[in-house]
Amino acid sequence: MDVQNYAMTRLRDACKHSGPLCVGLDTDPSYIPCEVLRLFDSPAEAVLAYNLALIEACGPWAGCFKVQIAYYEALGLAGLEVYAKTLQAVRSAGYLAIADVKRGDIADTARAYARAHFEGDFEADIITLNPYMGFETLDPFLEYIHTARKGVFVLLRTSNPGMKDIEWLELSPAPDSASAGRSDTVVQTRVLDVVGDALHRIGSRYISQDSSWVSPVGAVVGCTQEDDARTLRDRYPEIFFLIPGYGAQGGAARIAATLLSKAGGTVNSSRGILMAWAKDPSLEIRRTAGELFLADLVKSAERAAFAAKAELLGAVTALGN
Amino acid sequence: MDVQNYAMTRLRDACKHSGPLCVGLDTDPSYIPCEVLRLFDSPAEAVLAYNLALIEACGPWAGCFKVQIAYYEALGLAGLEVYAKTLQAVRSAGYLAIADVKRGDIADTARAYARAHFEGDFEADIITLNPYMGFETLDPFLEYIHTARKGVFVLLRTSNPGMKDIEWLELSPAPDSASAGRSDTVVQTRVLDVVGDALHRIGSRYISQDSSWVSPVGAVVGCTQEDDARTLRDRYPEIFFLIPGYGAQGGAARIAATLLSKAGGTVNSSRGILMAWAKDPSLEIRRTAGELFLADLVKSAERAAFAAKAELLGAVTALGN
Repeated sequence: MDVQNYAMTRLRDACKHSGPLCVGLDTDPSYIPCEVLRLFDSPAEAVLAYNLALIEACGPWAGCFKVQIAYYEALGLAGLEVYAKTLQAVRSAGYLAIADVKRGDIADTARAYARAHFEGDFEADIITLNPYMGFETLDPFLEYIHTARKGVFVLLRTSNPGMKDIEWLELSPAPDSASAGRSDTVVQTRVLDVVGDALHRIGSRYISQDSSWVSPVGAVVGCTQEDDARTLRDRYPEIFFLIPGYGAQGGAARIAATLLSKAGGTVNSSRGILMAWAKDPSLEIRRTAGELFLADLVKSAERAAFAAKAELLGAVTALGN
Repeated sequence: MDVQNYAMTRLRDACKHSGPLCVGLDTDPSYIPCEVLRLFDSPAEAVLAYNLALIEACGPWAGCFKVQIAYYEALGLAGLEVYAKTLQAVRSAGYLAIADVKRGDIADTARAYARAHFEGDFEADIITLNPYMGFETLDPFLEYIHTARKGVFVLLRTSNPGMKDIEWLELSPAPDSASAGRSDTVVQTRVLDVVGDALHRIGSRYISQDSSWVSPVGAVVGCTQEDDARTLRDRYPEIFFLIPGYGAQGGAARIAATLLSKAGGTVNSSRGILMAWAKDPSLEIRRTAGELFLADLVKSAERAAFAAKAELLGAVTALGN
């Protein structure tokens, strides 16, 4: 099977070429200072202008862009128009667009979500999915791997404390047959292991003899806990990771570096870049005076993207990957 | 605490008054015959016209309406405009609008989703949520119970076969403290029991001395399996259920009736009503001739809603609730 043009393969290659940073366009209007917001007709217009400038400025330091739909939904119809335009801008600039939608539903409804995010106004290259309702719910999205070379990132080990509530629950020692897979070699202990094994199993449908093969079924693995990072990286060497929890969420570059080995991954930074202006020492006087312009925000963001890329590559080198 | 005006209390009262049927406006254009679609400028326009007519015709037989956002997202920006207008029409006709969005995300992102679906263009009375990333992810939505008397339905036991993959997984006999709650009285065995106990615990923050109290934190429980229906109904007598799996999905009125006892619930029917025209014997000749009009679809839908309500009430009576 030719997997060279799959979105996940292209993403892996883009990250090899341009570095592992994923710039997260989770652009809430509250991340933009009042004096800049005021220059636009609406918060949605300001968000769009900031996004377009960020794509141009940060692109050279990023392997891809991730757009978190929640912030656009929160602005209603005007926000979703900006969401559509942002995805289009990312893709027409030649970057891969990851839509962070975390959808999860059954049957016809899952098919509708797949159409919504792999076609039409909201078309993305890769989207995030929530597997909670069962692995059959992934099928309508996987069809787009075949037909349109799209990709998915499924929640595996998220970066928030509440991941302990379900993802980390310990399973009974004799898991039922629905969770079969790699249980011959590794004992499944937690809910997230069942999910990971399912993603491994599903991804291997698309296996290629190409030695540089990467599964088109990726996983979301936060860089907030070292043990899990090492275990999951070793257990699923062929799965490309979308890695949240770096920067503003308190994750560490060292843990990210562990996750970046083997098939690799892309490390998301959203607020650390979008709000870099708020901590930029060179803007201190004008920030205090309320005299910032969009171009100032963009320059700070670009420097933050450059610094994040450098920090991540440094951590990868230190780890000896 | 005065809970009389909470959306969940109003929903319970509406279902007591008008019956347990929830009409699901999962209105995919493919559910509308070509000759009717052709009369409109776009599929989105046809969907809106059908929805508005359904709200008027089926309202008298329904306790509420549920709008599944996936079908509107699939139509892009035009679809989401119809989604907004549909929610507005449901609410201005005096019915409660449940937005079936199944969102689930962390921190600021969850807050953005809460704003998106409890305020502005997409404001609903009650929304569905996916708890997979942890119970802290529910908090931003719960705030709207206090501030705006909104409600939530959290996925507990869904109606699809894949629910066995995660929801039904057996837990280790000594669950960790995150799943504490009612473990003194009932042994927690499955992931869904941990979720149910968390919903019970969270809902009891809003407890009232009023003997007719119902938790503002509802749960989605499908009517596809009798054992689970009985167990969950007995275990969470104060939780109001949103019940999918009736009708087109193959669920049975008898199981629904079990779930409707104690705090009660509302039973969703979507395709069984939206596509009633396709099986209506009185339309056979004109259906075959391709001569249907929107009014025909609406009449079939109204009859199907009436029949569904009657079947559900009959099952409740038979069970002796």
